[in-house]
Amino acid sequence: METVSTNRSHGGTQGVYTHQSTATGTAMTFSVFVPDHAPEAKLPVLWYLSGLTCTHANVTEKGEFRAACAEHGIIFIAPDTSPRGDDLPDDEAYDFGKGAGFYVDAVQAPWSVNYRMRTYIEQELPALVAEHFPVDMARQGITGHSMGGHGALTIGLRNPDRFRSVSAFSPIVSPLNCPWGEKALGGYLGPDKAAWRAYDACALIEDGARLPDLLVDQGDADSFLHEQLKTGLLVMACRKAGIPATIRMQPGYDHSYYFISTFMADHIGWHAARLKA
Amino acid sequence: METVSTNRSHGGTQGVYTHQSTATGTAMTFSVFVPDHAPEAKLPVLWYLSGLTCTHANVTEKGEFRAACAEHGIIFIAPDTSPRGDDLPDDEAYDFGKGAGFYVDAVQAPWSVNYRMRTYIEQELPALVAEHFPVDMARQGITGHSMGGHGALTIGLRNPDRFRSVSAFSPIVSPLNCPWGEKALGGYLGPDKAAWRAYDACALIEDGARLPDLLVDQGDADSFLHEQLKTGLLVMACRKAGIPATIRMQPGYDHSYYFISTFMADHIGWHAARLKA
Repeated sequence: METVSTNRSHGGTQGVYTHQSTATGTAMTFSVFVPDHAPEAKLPVLWYLSGLTCTHANVTEKGEFRAACAEHGIIFIAPDTSPRGDDLPDDEAYDFGKGAGFYVDAVQAPWSVNYRMRTYIEQELPALVAEHFPVDMARQGITGHSMGGHGALTIGLRNPDRFRSVSAFSPIVSPLNCPWGEKALGGYLGPDKAAWRAYDACALIEDGARLPDLLVDQGDADSFLHEQLKTGLLVMACRKAGIPATIRMQPGYDHSYYFISTFMADHIGWHAARLKA
Repeated sequence: METVSTNRSHGGTQGVYTHQSTATGTAMTFSVFVPDHAPEAKLPVLWYLSGLTCTHANVTEKGEFRAACAEHGIIFIAPDTSPRGDDLPDDEAYDFGKGAGFYVDAVQAPWSVNYRMRTYIEQELPALVAEHFPVDMARQGITGHSMGGHGALTIGLRNPDRFRSVSAFSPIVSPLNCPWGEKALGGYLGPDKAAWRAYDACALIEDGARLPDLLVDQGDADSFLHEQLKTGLLVMACRKAGIPATIRMQPGYDHSYYFISTFMADHIGWHAARLKA
């Protein structure tokens, strides 16, 4: 692992790091904020998965998470959204290929060689982080935005022993039921929709996966709400499954980091209450 | 004036606006954050002047000012740092021409036609803002970063009746005494250094200008500190003049928005105490 940059910020260190990933076969870049802490202390961790077109940099620059992470003593990790490189398969559209990994392990050619973001986020990056940062891996939470909200929900649902807390900002709640999801999962996984269910929060809940609770914020002026995000499907799935979800429609807010940053401190406080209990 | 964009954020409206400036002869873009307020209320205003290479967008995206402005009920205005346009005189370097207006009215050809940021910031933009936003122009504060810290200090010192509060992040405190200043003021104003003194915070203080008090934060790991910023000259000028300045060296912090955002809420609270007194 190599350090790309470190900047002192909000009484801690905001770093950017790169390493050669075996999961994706490419260099991968991610950011980590570590609040100041006692020399031997291990801090709880909050993972943040980003949305379409983003890298680690969007939330690192615009997310306004550092003040709250410093206050609560939480390490904040922001991975990239796909493998990167000039010689990788890609698609001209913003919603498939680079910047659009959808947190799946692709099985379709030519994507299956590098687009293995599930293994990267679930296995490889946690092991790397545990080796290099003062993280208490017994206290992990996960959140994310849009495609990354989908990632947070599905990874959280599939790994209930790993994550004590799961939240999301304007998540894609059911790739089975929206154009972004149909394109991405169809392209990466192929036409058999039974294979998609492991990557669909509502289907995972329907198939028996559970969370102890859940916090979701969604802007009601989000232009993607009705066609792509479909928050109502998650409300129904949680209600049917008895998951005590707090799903808040925020009046006037859109899909941007102006929305995310507004509710970031709330989410960090919510995770802190569960990670430090 | 035309609205470029508005986004709801932190219980207010973050807008970006453009207008044709008579001062610069070009279109100019700026951002305004207006917290929610009572229908007839007029809110105090904090001006933020940006540094070299920046537009309004840097602080608007990375400045982390909205939560504190919403808390204190303060309107936050971020202008651009120079005129813009393909047919303007420019310089290849980052520290002269576009993105580097230095908040002066140029008198040297070819700069004197468009590079009139002093008139723009001191006269034209305040009049426009007063017409279009719910601002209480009797309660204005000013701050800024680096070249914009220089702008905030010099504009504040020259206009003591307009500004109740002046602060700065890592300001260029004396263009007369650093390479950035010598290049910019020499280029825009010509070789007669007597004319530069109206654009040099330390010289203005030496020549009799005063502030009721002053807050400055400066990172001690800032790579520009010793050659360009020279905070010590401001410390000495304030001491000699009896200005009760709070000039804080912040250990480990650099020149970036990771530094600015860390102390932004502090500055806004400091201005609020003076604007709402």
